[in-house]
Amino acid sequence: MSQPDIWASDRNGALLTDLYELTMMEAYHREDLHDTAVFDLFIRKLPDNRNYLLAAGLESALTYLENLRFTEEALTYLDSLGHFSADFLDYLADFRFTGDVFAIPEGTPVFPNEPILEIVAPLPQAQLAETMLLNQVHHQTLMASKASRVVDAAGEGAVVDFGARRMHGIDASLKAARAFHIAGADATSNVLAGQVYGIPVSGTMAHSYIEAHADEQAAFEAFATAYPETVLLVDTYDTLEGVRKVADMARHWGEAFRVRAIRLDSGDLARLARESRAILDDAGLQEVGILASGSLDEYAIAELRAQDAPIDGYGVGTHMGVSEDAPYLDSAYKLVEYAGEPRMKLATHKVTLPGRKQVFRQLDDRGTYQRDLVTRGYEQAPGTPLLRSVMAEGQRLPDRAPDLATIRSHARREREALPSQQRALEAAPAPYPVAVSEDLKKTAETLRQRLSS
Amino acid sequence: MSQPDIWASDRNGALLTDLYELTMMEAYHREDLHDTAVFDLFIRKLPDNRNYLLAAGLESALTYLENLRFTEEALTYLDSLGHFSADFLDYLADFRFTGDVFAIPEGTPVFPNEPILEIVAPLPQAQLAETMLLNQVHHQTLMASKASRVVDAAGEGAVVDFGARRMHGIDASLKAARAFHIAGADATSNVLAGQVYGIPVSGTMAHSYIEAHADEQAAFEAFATAYPETVLLVDTYDTLEGVRKVADMARHWGEAFRVRAIRLDSGDLARLARESRAILDDAGLQEVGILASGSLDEYAIAELRAQDAPIDGYGVGTHMGVSEDAPYLDSAYKLVEYAGEPRMKLATHKVTLPGRKQVFRQLDDRGTYQRDLVTRGYEQAPGTPLLRSVMAEGQRLPDRAPDLATIRSHARREREALPSQQRALEAAPAPYPVAVSEDLKKTAETLRQRLSS
Repeated sequence: MSQPDIWASDRNGALLTDLYELTMMEAYHREDLHDTAVFDLFIRKLPDNRNYLLAAGLESALTYLENLRFTEEALTYLDSLGHFSADFLDYLADFRFTGDVFAIPEGTPVFPNEPILEIVAPLPQAQLAETMLLNQVHHQTLMASKASRVVDAAGEGAVVDFGARRMHGIDASLKAARAFHIAGADATSNVLAGQVYGIPVSGTMAHSYIEAHADEQAAFEAFATAYPETVLLVDTYDTLEGVRKVADMARHWGEAFRVRAIRLDSGDLARLARESRAILDDAGLQEVGILASGSLDEYAIAELRAQDAPIDGYGVGTHMGVSEDAPYLDSAYKLVEYAGEPRMKLATHKVTLPGRKQVFRQLDDRGTYQRDLVTRGYEQAPGTPLLRSVMAEGQRLPDRAPDLATIRSHARREREALPSQQRALEAAPAPYPVAVSEDLKKTAETLRQRLSS
Repeated sequence: MSQPDIWASDRNGALLTDLYELTMMEAYHREDLHDTAVFDLFIRKLPDNRNYLLAAGLESALTYLENLRFTEEALTYLDSLGHFSADFLDYLADFRFTGDVFAIPEGTPVFPNEPILEIVAPLPQAQLAETMLLNQVHHQTLMASKASRVVDAAGEGAVVDFGARRMHGIDASLKAARAFHIAGADATSNVLAGQVYGIPVSGTMAHSYIEAHADEQAAFEAFATAYPETVLLVDTYDTLEGVRKVADMARHWGEAFRVRAIRLDSGDLARLARESRAILDDAGLQEVGILASGSLDEYAIAELRAQDAPIDGYGVGTHMGVSEDAPYLDSAYKLVEYAGEPRMKLATHKVTLPGRKQVFRQLDDRGTYQRDLVTRGYEQAPGTPLLRSVMAEGQRLPDRAPDLATIRSHARREREALPSQQRALEAAPAPYPVAVSEDLKKTAETLRQRLSS
């Protein structure tokens, strides 16, 4: 047993898998089942309060596949379990992912039963990758999908990710910051996410700073001296008193006063924003903005906007950070073809569509999504094919790796192309139409009859 | 901007913080506010369907504090933001955590407003650590608390963590596996968690293995040849047909048949378990167990047990892995003392208790928890003091670092000492009594009057 370590390392990624992936791999290896398998990664159904999902996580998935290796330490550990043969461990020592990957680009809205990723690789390779591909694509798609709603609800208001402290661990806080940015969030408080992904970072002061000083006024003055264009948190003791202190400070400081905004973090935010706005305006501080935070999500933001609360930006933490109203998606990674033959599972309520596929997105005259058509991989149909080749023989295709800003612009354009019913916060009266081609239906039906007989 | 990297590294832990921690640190540094601060990490209130929480995450918190350093790369990034002075960056270059930490041991049930961690350190140090301490202790306490209910519901049945694929990222999947094990889970499917923490790993086959074969029977035989004492997944096509195939196999194989159990993963698990049991028993396979999985949580397990479903173990995935019915806790990290003076915040609904503290747990004659008393740090009171010194001047106290097995036994004993109302799955009619000492109340009241005046 190695020392407990707070950070995982990229050297041990191959072990981030369910044990059964490895036992199945060994069985495949013994039985010489190394033929090409096709696995689809998709979402079976939407949570009640989602009308679309925003695909994310591909970058992580490809980085993982490209770096997949079993280290000496990993092999020693596997050997210690006593399950695995020396022959299999030798095979793992030389293991590389050599397959092809097709994917819907990050930042694209997706719907149930559309493959987000299609992995085409020798069966043991594709099997091993299941756990980690799901872990990354599920989480990042979950986060981007939640954030897309929050950003939409905020309209012109800025959205800043404040969620790191209550997200589920370190990796969650980094990957979510990236997914939020893809979905349109303007900045993150997470400094490491800023460094790793180049996302703008934002943040000013907490209540503890105010409390560490003899009084609130002293704290405001000290902070604005250090950071003239700062945001002052006004609700540590009495919110409107706090705002008055800011106004007093502006009077005394004159031109030296360059505070950019105040932040409200508790209480009736709509009322406090209005009353704060009045105090600031009376003091001639029209240019000082108001930021709000504290248990915000898309519903709370929509309500604040419905009340015309004069809020310029939103710090959104936990509810977005854990996708509180839908903390997981019904994700799946299913074998759909092996050795050229379509495959499917018949277990109750979990029927899958067999074979390689394509998804065509059809737009109306105004550029709005009209319907999607899922076809067999070789079919041609009207509309834009969404699944694109992104990795061939284990190598990423560099011209298919857009940077974060490009993914983010793509996501904004695509969100604007969603039908208004799907873009609403409440459940759409009807799901977005995702049709299945006749050819694919026939393949599924033929296979079902064969398997049931 | 560095390359997007799927794994964070322990070299950049210092940047896993909210930007405002760093801006506050710089302000403290300029104002020479380096006196000793006390911060409490606690949960403000329980989610609706929790009667207690199980403390976890201390090990990660201490590892983080002990390794906290700003690398050259981190400093270069901070410099690039243009917020920070050269003097402050020099200060960060030599930064070490030199404080003391008091904590309630991992695996101990805790209640709202009881400090799980108390950090006593120079103000800038304690401030920086806020985000990461919360991130780790919040997540692991959340996970241990959920798993404790699942384990309790399962009674004598084994509980295996199957959650890695839908947990929120890599770190979540590792830390949750550890938290689940503390709470009593028997094993995890997560191989890396097995390697890192020494937790037993478990797992056999997925539907894809069955589907990769020409038929189910061939798949069963191939797998049981490779792994004689395996668990066979029987619900890929028709569950009871699958069980009959296992029974047939036992007849044909005779003594070579050593399959340990079957697994049901869909459908009406109680009915299928009963009918499967009958088929197995009729074939003389009384010693072949039945494992169940598929959307399980403490409620579903309790329901299966209420129906006397003959199930020997439970694979529990997503619902435990994201704590689905309560995906976050109302955690807080609050300044309660600075430079020897108690501190508190008055914002609506978020009043904190000032000063250093102790928590005394008082038991009745039968060893059951009767009530907790939160006191000022120097007070003596009946009962067991829960907060213990675990780090002094930035160094861990090695005799206060129990191994995982010890923490797990402690958690089991402590869960058994909970009042039955608190141990129930439904909301307790009354919360567990957590009293506040007269001295602490008086300190809070005096401070409140001074701050409101």
